[in-house]
Amino acid sequence: MIGWARKAAKQVWLGGVRAADRRERRRLGMLDHDLLPALWDAGVDADGQLVLGGCDAVGLAERFGTPLFVVDKARLRKDYTAVLEGFRRHHPSVEVSYSYKTNPLPGVLRTLHDWGAGAEVISHFELWLALRLGVPPEQVIFNGPAKTHEALALAVSRGVRLINVDNLSEIDAIEKLAAQEGRTQRIGVRVVTSVGWSGQFGLGIRQGDAREAFERARRCPHLDPCALHLHLGTGIKNVEVYLRAVREVLEFADELRERAGVAIRFFDLGGGFGIPTVRPFSSTDFRLIANGFPPGLVDPDAAPRIEGYAGRIVELFRQHRSGTGPEAPVLIFEPGRAVTSRSQTLLLRVVAVKAASGGRFNAILDGGKNVAMPPGFEYHEVFPASRMREARHATYDLYGPLCHPGDVVRASLRMPKLAPGDVIAVMDAGAYFVPNQMNFSNPRCGAVMVDRGTAEWIRRHESFEDVVGRDELP
Amino acid sequence: MIGWARKAAKQVWLGGVRAADRRERRRLGMLDHDLLPALWDAGVDADGQLVLGGCDAVGLAERFGTPLFVVDKARLRKDYTAVLEGFRRHHPSVEVSYSYKTNPLPGVLRTLHDWGAGAEVISHFELWLALRLGVPPEQVIFNGPAKTHEALALAVSRGVRLINVDNLSEIDAIEKLAAQEGRTQRIGVRVVTSVGWSGQFGLGIRQGDAREAFERARRCPHLDPCALHLHLGTGIKNVEVYLRAVREVLEFADELRERAGVAIRFFDLGGGFGIPTVRPFSSTDFRLIANGFPPGLVDPDAAPRIEGYAGRIVELFRQHRSGTGPEAPVLIFEPGRAVTSRSQTLLLRVVAVKAASGGRFNAILDGGKNVAMPPGFEYHEVFPASRMREARHATYDLYGPLCHPGDVVRASLRMPKLAPGDVIAVMDAGAYFVPNQMNFSNPRCGAVMVDRGTAEWIRRHESFEDVVGRDELP
Repeated sequence: MIGWARKAAKQVWLGGVRAADRRERRRLGMLDHDLLPALWDAGVDADGQLVLGGCDAVGLAERFGTPLFVVDKARLRKDYTAVLEGFRRHHPSVEVSYSYKTNPLPGVLRTLHDWGAGAEVISHFELWLALRLGVPPEQVIFNGPAKTHEALALAVSRGVRLINVDNLSEIDAIEKLAAQEGRTQRIGVRVVTSVGWSGQFGLGIRQGDAREAFERARRCPHLDPCALHLHLGTGIKNVEVYLRAVREVLEFADELRERAGVAIRFFDLGGGFGIPTVRPFSSTDFRLIANGFPPGLVDPDAAPRIEGYAGRIVELFRQHRSGTGPEAPVLIFEPGRAVTSRSQTLLLRVVAVKAASGGRFNAILDGGKNVAMPPGFEYHEVFPASRMREARHATYDLYGPLCHPGDVVRASLRMPKLAPGDVIAVMDAGAYFVPNQMNFSNPRCGAVMVDRGTAEWIRRHESFEDVVGRDELP
Repeated sequence: MIGWARKAAKQVWLGGVRAADRRERRRLGMLDHDLLPALWDAGVDADGQLVLGGCDAVGLAERFGTPLFVVDKARLRKDYTAVLEGFRRHHPSVEVSYSYKTNPLPGVLRTLHDWGAGAEVISHFELWLALRLGVPPEQVIFNGPAKTHEALALAVSRGVRLINVDNLSEIDAIEKLAAQEGRTQRIGVRVVTSVGWSGQFGLGIRQGDAREAFERARRCPHLDPCALHLHLGTGIKNVEVYLRAVREVLEFADELRERAGVAIRFFDLGGGFGIPTVRPFSSTDFRLIANGFPPGLVDPDAAPRIEGYAGRIVELFRQHRSGTGPEAPVLIFEPGRAVTSRSQTLLLRVVAVKAASGGRFNAILDGGKNVAMPPGFEYHEVFPASRMREARHATYDLYGPLCHPGDVVRASLRMPKLAPGDVIAVMDAGAYFVPNQMNFSNPRCGAVMVDRGTAEWIRRHESFEDVVGRDELP
């Protein structure tokens, strides 16, 4: 058992270590390959407490209560700007529409919109929310496989920038609604390429469904079929996969131009960009965890940066007729994780500590799967926020408060000796944590935004009364 | 591929088929091993629509909107009574405390309490809810690995029937609170046996931790250590496993009586009883699904009935000193699934239908993982509620509305030809559906209770405004 585990662990302990980083790790009781808080622009103060956006995490936990999401506004701006500028540097006309499903906190969304981001929505609720937050319809893109009639009617009546159709019957429905409104609606077609998600999504290029969609749309007097939409998946770190799909989309655009006389003016290339500090668990990781070993680490230097994607994607456009010409097409991106993951941290508190077999410890936290689903299937760094300068001599399994053995926040983590009241920080809590929150035995938690030492509520904690606010007793 | 799939499918197609059932299945266009609606006390009306509690499902979907949980009060009573009487028939003193975490709909909980059920709670919220619903503290049992100080203080001040301690430090905390209140608190110890869940839960019998807990509690003047608590897991269908654990608990009780002078008056044997119409997917099922085959069916006749457990568990008690004597101990059970699973159905509506490869179809529903998590990991019967008498000639993959390929409600299901607007019924939606609901891109759905042809709200749908009701914009 130990043989394969060592071997598996070695395979993921990659990358060199800079001398300065090594000194900082020693100072924090870390091992050579542990990730430093600086990767999230977090610090450690003189009391050994984690600092987020200029606020110490322990103080935030005390003032606002736990579990608590903490959004660092400066870091959010940095990540949003990196995505936007990463592409704009290579192409004049780039739009970024934030994927609402990834982190639907209105405080975060409104902040991104203030900086110019558009909204990518996939449901009636998300469409409503974007309009409610004051996003101009011209900055709203409506996607998804389950657009209800009510949602399409709202989208067309307000004139959203683009509706990417997912099946043929949507074309007729949008034409009818647009005719009623007496306006023309811009539409795109979500296409399926030879790589990436297919299943329930989109219309195949190879199968001819996508071509059929354009032919049908061209016959509709109130539709302007002008966009191709691609979305491969989530957490993609393999640029080649992305490039292959974009190449197929460009070839399809050339074909549409030449054979159907359709000029594609918008290439919506979706999102799904991975980030350096999170990676999905492999089957090896699950096997390591099940046998009492830690999962393999992540190597933040091994992941491609957004600039890496950007240059090569834009390069591809230069090679195709549809990507060049007097009016260069608009490139639309719909990032979620790349924009919000790193600026958001989840603070939890230790409720109980129990000795376990083999000299290990179990710590039970006040939040688990109910507020933090993703650490069950991907690597997330976890810091002892209240003891950042203490040597990490003990091995802990961190559990949530639910009565289920699968309620694990992090298995086999080296930690300083923990006690009830200690604060734990789960990093990269800004993608798929909030939408996956559940009322499993507990109310759901709130969020604060921190900015250079100040903190304010953006979502208050759910009260007990809130949880049953929609109930009537028979 | 087909070879192993056929073989795997055969292994689960067990059980004989009665002639009457065969006729009914032919009438409903079903195959020989399909489960009949009568298993849930559901019917089919002259229009071919599924009938739940005397109400046709399509009418309910139209009147109340979908997604919608439908609770059949008569069936709920039947299942609750079966559990209670199943044990009472064998033992004079049995108490049933419903596991709040399984289905925390106040309308369902209050109904069960009206029939005499107690409350088994595992969090501050659930404890608060039980008291808020008017459950007398003498009928509340407080369990769980993460009892906060506030929750323990509430439990002790109100004098709940039993607190089952999960770690040694809880003993000191409860003693201190009970001393402040000037009362004695009844406590039990959650023990870990050689089978069932361990991990973060309870105190080991073999390891001596459970014994240590009783010795510590005996020295506390305000504690009455009088109970042993066992909870093995969820969906248990193997009676032998259960019996083995109960035997270890009884042996430990004998040991406590003889060596520590502690008389156990309450045996809390937890819940986790499986039901005939649901079973967890095996690795073979996942492999079948991934390769485009349906999962194996369930054989409702193969699962043990509650009476099967009851007689054999009580029999064990007769064989032990601690289970007999002038004052027979109280047996406490904490069922969840066995009480509420079958009486609750989830109604969904088809939003879009797409032809897929191989002559198959994809249907996109208005609810998926966001309202129906369990069908991702266990078998649930799914009916075409609006077309119950049409022959099931086509193969459908039923997807939810989320933008994730894993949002599958049911793979490879034979169905009549579906169209947008059709109503789909997911059976056994009364265990772990409601607590696992999420706000993933959508508001969460409400519930109605049906009773002999009438229907009334017990939880209204979440509105868009509700979803962002706790948010403040920066």
